[in-house]
Amino acid sequence: MAAHRSEMSRSVYITGVSGFIGLHTAKMFADDNFAVIGIDQRPLEPSDLCKHGISHFVKTSCVLESLNQIASEHGRPSVIVHCAGSASVQMSFEDPRADFMSNVMTTVDVLEYARVNQTVRVVVPSSAAVYGAVSTIPLDEEGAVRPVSPYGVHKLLAEQLCRSYGASFGVAAACVRLFSVYGAGLRKQLLWDACNKADAHNFKFFGTGDEVRDWLHVVDAARLLRLAAGWASPQCPIVNGGTGIGISIREILSRIGKHWQPSLVPIFSGQERRGDPQRYIADTRLGARLGFTATINLDEALLEYVEWFKKERGL
Amino acid sequence: MAAHRSEMSRSVYITGVSGFIGLHTAKMFADDNFAVIGIDQRPLEPSDLCKHGISHFVKTSCVLESLNQIASEHGRPSVIVHCAGSASVQMSFEDPRADFMSNVMTTVDVLEYARVNQTVRVVVPSSAAVYGAVSTIPLDEEGAVRPVSPYGVHKLLAEQLCRSYGASFGVAAACVRLFSVYGAGLRKQLLWDACNKADAHNFKFFGTGDEVRDWLHVVDAARLLRLAAGWASPQCPIVNGGTGIGISIREILSRIGKHWQPSLVPIFSGQERRGDPQRYIADTRLGARLGFTATINLDEALLEYVEWFKKERGL
Repeated sequence: MAAHRSEMSRSVYITGVSGFIGLHTAKMFADDNFAVIGIDQRPLEPSDLCKHGISHFVKTSCVLESLNQIASEHGRPSVIVHCAGSASVQMSFEDPRADFMSNVMTTVDVLEYARVNQTVRVVVPSSAAVYGAVSTIPLDEEGAVRPVSPYGVHKLLAEQLCRSYGASFGVAAACVRLFSVYGAGLRKQLLWDACNKADAHNFKFFGTGDEVRDWLHVVDAARLLRLAAGWASPQCPIVNGGTGIGISIREILSRIGKHWQPSLVPIFSGQERRGDPQRYIADTRLGARLGFTATINLDEALLEYVEWFKKERGL
Repeated sequence: MAAHRSEMSRSVYITGVSGFIGLHTAKMFADDNFAVIGIDQRPLEPSDLCKHGISHFVKTSCVLESLNQIASEHGRPSVIVHCAGSASVQMSFEDPRADFMSNVMTTVDVLEYARVNQTVRVVVPSSAAVYGAVSTIPLDEEGAVRPVSPYGVHKLLAEQLCRSYGASFGVAAACVRLFSVYGAGLRKQLLWDACNKADAHNFKFFGTGDEVRDWLHVVDAARLLRLAAGWASPQCPIVNGGTGIGISIREILSRIGKHWQPSLVPIFSGQERRGDPQRYIADTRLGARLGFTATINLDEALLEYVEWFKKERGL
């Protein structure tokens, strides 16, 4: 009983829990005996509560007042993983202020909560988009950053705020620069578009297909966020979330095509998209030193994605 | 009449106009034939309206909604000088979120207004506090920044947002890193404290007196902000506002003492203050290349301060 109580005294708030990364992160912490309080302004299916080990779900936006309210009802968390925030480069060009509010302002509120309740550790998922126009490969965490989208700038500001709260107030935080996170269940971005296009017999894509990305499976991403809670400190380590392996979009789509139906080959428009850099590959040495290495096999995960998609559609 | 109308079509919004720098900046633009719309959540004495050439004063906080409202009543400005924002390092340690709101959030709203109304030029007074723990002397604008207070971090974020809005949306902006701005009329900070202590026959100070600052007279600061409106571009130049000359706090206080009463000599506690770096001297080459050089004589201005203070107190 004592052991049980002690285990249950570990609790985590996961903001943006209804999102793809949020849900998987909830599961990762639940499997590690954390009581998981999920927070999101978007709804959450009751089935997702059990499936992802979420003890309580609070439907609210991530503002300081809500965090204080939740703490008074459910107790203070030992960890906050701040998955809330817009994750669309394109949207950040369309409404930069909204992107600022969801990515920077919410981070201030989480940090402010942690400042006033000193025991909390904060993990902030950042993005490879902070590197922007940097062309060094692989991208290392202490190297230059040159974001080329409002989204990338805002993620960088969120990191700087974490370090500022650490230096000035001793808030223990860690940031993870996630590269291209994917996995079955993600109903947007490249793989989702690809399967929809395959299904519509129209396997054509914008861009050149030559852009190289570092593809991190969502289960690896969630495990990394779990580990990062252990690394959180006032120095605020910033760690890449990638595999260290660069795979072109052409290659990904070719594999998706092959898994869909052996003869399916992608066709590209050849037009480059604004704010999309050419090559993103993570330097994974710091993560490895701290104890993280990505383990999910890309090709198996792409096959799993196609199978999940077909099952969803009853194909 | 046509000439008059054309002159009057130039207008400037000055946020934080009730503040020390805001008032002097208003005067500088008014003298240059701008219609000046002053904005501040603090009140403004009616006498200050005329004295500083402010055509209209709007008592409101600096949020996007207010800017839109003001534009619908008074017309769009050609320039916004964003003097609003907290200017206290100490306060930023006590309430970092309030400092963030007043320094970063308001800047987003000004930039957002400029993004939607593409003709506006934006000037953002930043601070030498962005340099923080950098020990290179003199401090140059393209060199390292290592802010050591939430205030310094927030001023840096405001600069980064200006550059982001420039790069992504073509908003024309300029930032000025003001060093230690002083002048008759400033009812806070070192000179104000010094005269109050002299008046109370208690000329003792915290700190070592060895901290070196670059003292910029408020009239020079206002002239620089006026010039910066001409430099505003999507590349967002960031220019130091200083004289290039470092003077210790001990030296300043000794001069104030001498001007007050020849035998008055300052005494120091010897204790260093958190967030206060040892030496701040501006590299003024970029400003000089663009056409700005500080001109106000320090010792004369200190004498003027003492005379202003004594007159205020009826001494």
